[in-house]
Amino acid sequence: MAEKRRLRVGLVGTGFMGRTHANAYGQVSKFFDSAIAVELTAVCSRNAGKTRRFAEQWGFASHESDWRKLVARDDIDLIDIATPNDTHAEIAIAAAQTGKIVACEKPLGRTFEESHRMADAVKKAGVANMVWYNYRRVPAIALAKQLIDEGFLGRVFHYRSKFLQDWTISQDVPQGGAGTWRLDKSVAGSGVTGDLLAHCIDAAQWLNGSIREVSGMTETFIRERAHVATGKPQPVTIDDASAFLARFENGSLATFEATRYARGHKALFTLEINGERGSIAWDLHDLHRLQLFDHGGKGALRGWRSIHVTDGDHPYMKAWWVPGLQIGYEHTFIHQVADFLKGLESGKTLVPDFETALKTDAVVDAVLRSAQTRQWEPVPG
Amino acid sequence: MAEKRRLRVGLVGTGFMGRTHANAYGQVSKFFDSAIAVELTAVCSRNAGKTRRFAEQWGFASHESDWRKLVARDDIDLIDIATPNDTHAEIAIAAAQTGKIVACEKPLGRTFEESHRMADAVKKAGVANMVWYNYRRVPAIALAKQLIDEGFLGRVFHYRSKFLQDWTISQDVPQGGAGTWRLDKSVAGSGVTGDLLAHCIDAAQWLNGSIREVSGMTETFIRERAHVATGKPQPVTIDDASAFLARFENGSLATFEATRYARGHKALFTLEINGERGSIAWDLHDLHRLQLFDHGGKGALRGWRSIHVTDGDHPYMKAWWVPGLQIGYEHTFIHQVADFLKGLESGKTLVPDFETALKTDAVVDAVLRSAQTRQWEPVPG
Amino acid sequence: MAEKRRLRVGLVGTGFMGRTHANAYGQVSKFFDSAIAVELTAVCSRNAGKTRRFAEQWGFASHESDWRKLVARDDIDLIDIATPNDTHAEIAIAAAQTGKIVACEKPLGRTFEESHRMADAVKKAGVANMVWYNYRRVPAIALAKQLIDEGFLGRVFHYRSKFLQDWTISQDVPQGGAGTWRLDKSVAGSGVTGDLLAHCIDAAQWLNGSIREVSGMTETFIRERAHVATGKPQPVTIDDASAFLARFENGSLATFEATRYARGHKALFTLEINGERGSIAWDLHDLHRLQLFDHGGKGALRGWRSIHVTDGDHPYMKAWWVPGLQIGYEHTFIHQVADFLKGLESGKTLVPDFETALKTDAVVDAVLRSAQTRQWEPVPG
Amino acid sequence: MAEKRRLRVGLVGTGFMGRTHANAYGQVSKFFDSAIAVELTAVCSRNAGKTRRFAEQWGFASHESDWRKLVARDDIDLIDIATPNDTHAEIAIAAAQTGKIVACEKPLGRTFEESHRMADAVKKAGVANMVWYNYRRVPAIALAKQLIDEGFLGRVFHYRSKFLQDWTISQDVPQGGAGTWRLDKSVAGSGVTGDLLAHCIDAAQWLNGSIREVSGMTETFIRERAHVATGKPQPVTIDDASAFLARFENGSLATFEATRYARGHKALFTLEINGERGSIAWDLHDLHRLQLFDHGGKGALRGWRSIHVTDGDHPYMKAWWVPGLQIGYEHTFIHQVADFLKGLESGKTLVPDFETALKTDAVVDAVLRSAQTRQWEPVPG
Repeated sequence: MAEKRRLRVGLVGTGFMGRTHANAYGQVSKFFDSAIAVELTAVCSRNAGKTRRFAEQWGFASHESDWRKLVARDDIDLIDIATPNDTHAEIAIAAAQTGKIVACEKPLGRTFEESHRMADAVKKAGVANMVWYNYRRVPAIALAKQLIDEGFLGRVFHYRSKFLQDWTISQDVPQGGAGTWRLDKSVAGSGVTGDLLAHCIDAAQWLNGSIREVSGMTETFIRERAHVATGKPQPVTIDDASAFLARFENGSLATFEATRYARGHKALFTLEINGERGSIAWDLHDLHRLQLFDHGGKGALRGWRSIHVTDGDHPYMKAWWVPGLQIGYEHTFIHQVADFLKGLESGKTLVPDFETALKTDAVVDAVLRSAQTRQWEPVPG
Repeated sequence: MAEKRRLRVGLVGTGFMGRTHANAYGQVSKFFDSAIAVELTAVCSRNAGKTRRFAEQWGFASHESDWRKLVARDDIDLIDIATPNDTHAEIAIAAAQTGKIVACEKPLGRTFEESHRMADAVKKAGVANMVWYNYRRVPAIALAKQLIDEGFLGRVFHYRSKFLQDWTISQDVPQGGAGTWRLDKSVAGSGVTGDLLAHCIDAAQWLNGSIREVSGMTETFIRERAHVATGKPQPVTIDDASAFLARFENGSLATFEATRYARGHKALFTLEINGERGSIAWDLHDLHRLQLFDHGGKGALRGWRSIHVTDGDHPYMKAWWVPGLQIGYEHTFIHQVADFLKGLESGKTLVPDFETALKTDAVVDAVLRSAQTRQWEPVPG
Repeated sequence: MAEKRRLRVGLVGTGFMGRTHANAYGQVSKFFDSAIAVELTAVCSRNAGKTRRFAEQWGFASHESDWRKLVARDDIDLIDIATPNDTHAEIAIAAAQTGKIVACEKPLGRTFEESHRMADAVKKAGVANMVWYNYRRVPAIALAKQLIDEGFLGRVFHYRSKFLQDWTISQDVPQGGAGTWRLDKSVAGSGVTGDLLAHCIDAAQWLNGSIREVSGMTETFIRERAHVATGKPQPVTIDDASAFLARFENGSLATFEATRYARGHKALFTLEINGERGSIAWDLHDLHRLQLFDHGGKGALRGWRSIHVTDGDHPYMKAWWVPGLQIGYEHTFIHQVADFLKGLESGKTLVPDFETALKTDAVVDAVLRSAQTRQWEPVPG
Repeated sequence: MAEKRRLRVGLVGTGFMGRTHANAYGQVSKFFDSAIAVELTAVCSRNAGKTRRFAEQWGFASHESDWRKLVARDDIDLIDIATPNDTHAEIAIAAAQTGKIVACEKPLGRTFEESHRMADAVKKAGVANMVWYNYRRVPAIALAKQLIDEGFLGRVFHYRSKFLQDWTISQDVPQGGAGTWRLDKSVAGSGVTGDLLAHCIDAAQWLNGSIREVSGMTETFIRERAHVATGKPQPVTIDDASAFLARFENGSLATFEATRYARGHKALFTLEINGERGSIAWDLHDLHRLQLFDHGGKGALRGWRSIHVTDGDHPYMKAWWVPGLQIGYEHTFIHQVADFLKGLESGKTLVPDFETALKTDAVVDAVLRSAQTRQWEPVPG
């Protein structure tokens, strides 16, 4: 396979997201054909020992402990950013400036301003780029997109989406550490709005077009938490919960909500769209199913249909096993790499790229502003 | 409404079934039009005080404490038997001999021989008759029947049905009393086979034709129970659980099972049919839903559809409320009376009548025999 | 039963709601003991022929075609208002002034001002009164209320509720007629806000306390509809869809939504509450089930539990059949009458009474205002 | 990692099962720690070109086209058999005789006699061995096993299990080819009994102890199918459907069923166990969920609980992502390798080994015999 074009990956970050990306790069060629050969060239994180072990375990040929060195290497084609949000902008911009392809975990920056600078940087550099809004690559959601593009819904009236978790309800969860950087505004930028709602918004704008205006509300239920290092209580700076009403450009109404205080829900990302001719619903807890209501056909036999999205004619599923056998969460990342390789081959941009992700961050920004102003806020176009 | 034909009802039995029947006679005219006016003429049970109160509460014009007197009255058109199984044959035969219409709770008799005599009696007397296999009148099951009659399934391969309860698991449940007559073979005839499987069999033969042969197994898990009067342990004489394999005349295979030892299931009557072109499933715990799989249409969009059977174009539902609003268990009895009245008006026999019910008892009989012989047994035709 | 206290009912309205109320008055004594005997004394609606037939069918002793005559009769103890919203205030106030007990369909009036006058009238007259927010009497919701009152949830973080229908999506649905008065603002007062959201709000404030402030949005998707009489297009005056964000007095956040444009949902009233120690969810399409998440116990075994609320130790269910057998929609009205009779016996007020219902209308009013002002609006206390 | 003990794998078979095994060997070290390093030393199948590509894609160091050569190589520690059933015995026995560890796809042989010879061979050779009954490694099933071992169920009354597919319903499915070897008795040994029921039986005996006796029934619905090569119709020699009643040694009753004619079910492997204290249910279409009914606690709050088996304290799940994020089918194979490595490290045998699998084949054998004799058949001990 020596004649194949190579894509030499330099991964920054060895945490939860680092693992999902590393797995995706390692698995993609086993399930998807491509004219491009992905190579795990280097991985980088601050802890040298941990990084070395990560490299061994996942098959990276080398490792670094300073992302600047990684970005400077000329044996690397793609810089993939899987670090906490406060580092996204700096790394992405630097990588773009060296002409490298840039992949970045969502959201882009901590603020709309940071996101803007990142999107500008890749545009100016003219480098290929993508953002890991991985849920677009859930086969059931990809099937929903196909249906919508084919006109299955007709005129859309309603969109609703939630992302419910319950992992921060206890007062005992600390803040300030590596494992809880999502609770620190200075690192994360915001709480659930940027972390969870961003996924909801990305999917929503993909499936239903642009959001025009929002009315938002945020809340911090537990106002002080102990710092993981000092044990001393400190004010919590992020939003624990966030909800908003919205109007889309196509005239449909929406409700959105995310929280880490919904007891009993681990990662319940849901979406539902109601159109003139039918409705579609999905949730992450049973990600291999799509719920469909088709208003056509005989009235007495109408009902919500649960499609087990595991057949060869379902998006991505031909690559996997046989009908009825599920894939899971990690596969969405593999699919994203597979699609990105196809894009690189054909010269077509993979969405979501930085420009698309910026539109998501624009809504995040409007929601956070609206929660302050207590008024409807337009989404900056 | 003086010009309406009258149907003067004499109800025997004031227990659980007595109440469901009384309610059905009282409610039917409020929801279903009929040229026949049902009158609650008399109710009968051994305890005079309780019977009097029952008559007051349910609006019966008179009451008796001896069913022979009730049967002898000439101001009664229909004798409805809602007593324990050991009295069915005697009352039904006597009622038929006086030329009265006879309605009887299922199963007909305690034994196939008793059932045979009952069916012969109504046939000889030429009286209208019906048996309360009420589940045929669940709107969802009636919809299933319509679909099957229209050819929705194509060739049928599989049928499966269960009736699972858990109310006798405790060793502390006594036997020998009025409340537990279902545990006494001398009263009930058999245990779950006649009590629960009979419902499964009735629905199965209605939906899928005759059962040809069976291989059965029964079990009594708790072999001794205290007598409710004496407190002394006595052998349990009925089957706690019963299961059988079957072949239908149409070549399809089946599994059937009933038990009172399935922890977590209160009254889980289920059925599923798999045909060439589609499948149908239903269960009593969510009786207002029909599950449907239609193999037609676009492959990628196939799935099990959950039909909320509450629309005006669903069987029986036009009589009730508006789409989305459920009815429940008691309504199946009201529907049966409504259908029976229609039959009386038109001269058409309502099924299930005694003859139909006898065919159910024939399968019950074959199952119980097979459990003894440990061989396949043909169903007596 | 001559010695029993009598409650002589005069029902105004013979439509959908008239039927549910008539059924409730007729059935209550068959399933619930009371020292008060309900009598169906008179029914009233404008069409004399229809009213006579309704009286015959449901067993009312007499009938009227002018509600003023009904209210003036001294052989009636309770005036029950089951007519369109534009008549509620006038009838209720007149009935109260004659010292009669008043029962009224929800919402009270077309506007907060009308509702206020109604609540003032019954208060001034000192008459017993109730409003038919029947869903409080769904056994599963009553069980939820019990659990919440016992502290099952702990601190509450989130509430969400929806009421989704799809019956007005077609442009062909006309307006202006008796069957579609819910589409006329002059009759109904508002669209889904007063019709559907009112149910959500009543349940919410019962289960989770007062709502403090709201940010709302409404929409009319189909702006013109033919008048049923003239066939000519006329502007649609009501809200087709309505959604709002809310904050409760207890600090919890909420999202609410109602629409008649959610394809595939017939009458999907849902509610979910997330607390520190557990969560509760319910929906009307499977009204006999309560979903429960209990955070106590062994972590690895936690999950959402589906309680089939049909046991003798569940609210109201001892009156009905045996475990596993469902009741439905109409039973909520029977339960409300049973509870109201208990209240009359003991002198305790049944909630929801007019005063409670006024608090619901206060939220409805704030939502409609907020949709105009595009700002957060406080709920008038 | 040079100091690690190596396990050099020689895989026979590059079809569906070859892929799942290759993936398992490749992924295990990325998610599970082990003192043993798995090496993908060689892969073997008859088509040299396909085998070479498979080796490249999956990272095998070498490839063979004759399994005898593979077995003869002394740089291989484990022979893994992922070929059609007619080759299992010959390869496994030969591998054992060279002293190699043997892993084999289920079922062992085509007949109980072949399976016996295979089990004898590994026993005689004293080599470590395992059989790929992968579903034991579904986290939800492993959790069920833990619960049962801790006494969660109490006395067991009922077991039921099904494996329903629908892929052979069309008359157009041919036989005789590589892709349809499961339809040829000479290759597969039997139809769904050995293919699908074997999975049900393995899980059943693991969770609920030995099956004592069975009464079975089999059917071939489509009696002739075209040969894939010649196009000529030939008799179908395998069972399309198979069902049986059973009694376990612990006194519980069971129903089992497998078919490829259940329209709407792709790979619906289900199991349910009812015990005195609780019940457990699971199905493969939502494999990440365990259904649990616990009879303990407050009666009014009992219900079936749906456990989303994705937490760190669930079996195997600590190795994967975060709570709420699913894994899928392929992971069961990875878990089996991880467990096998642990067994090799500690010297403890992994179950299911050949001896365990032989007990499954004993039940398969009894079922097929019973379908012929039409009588209950004891399971050979």
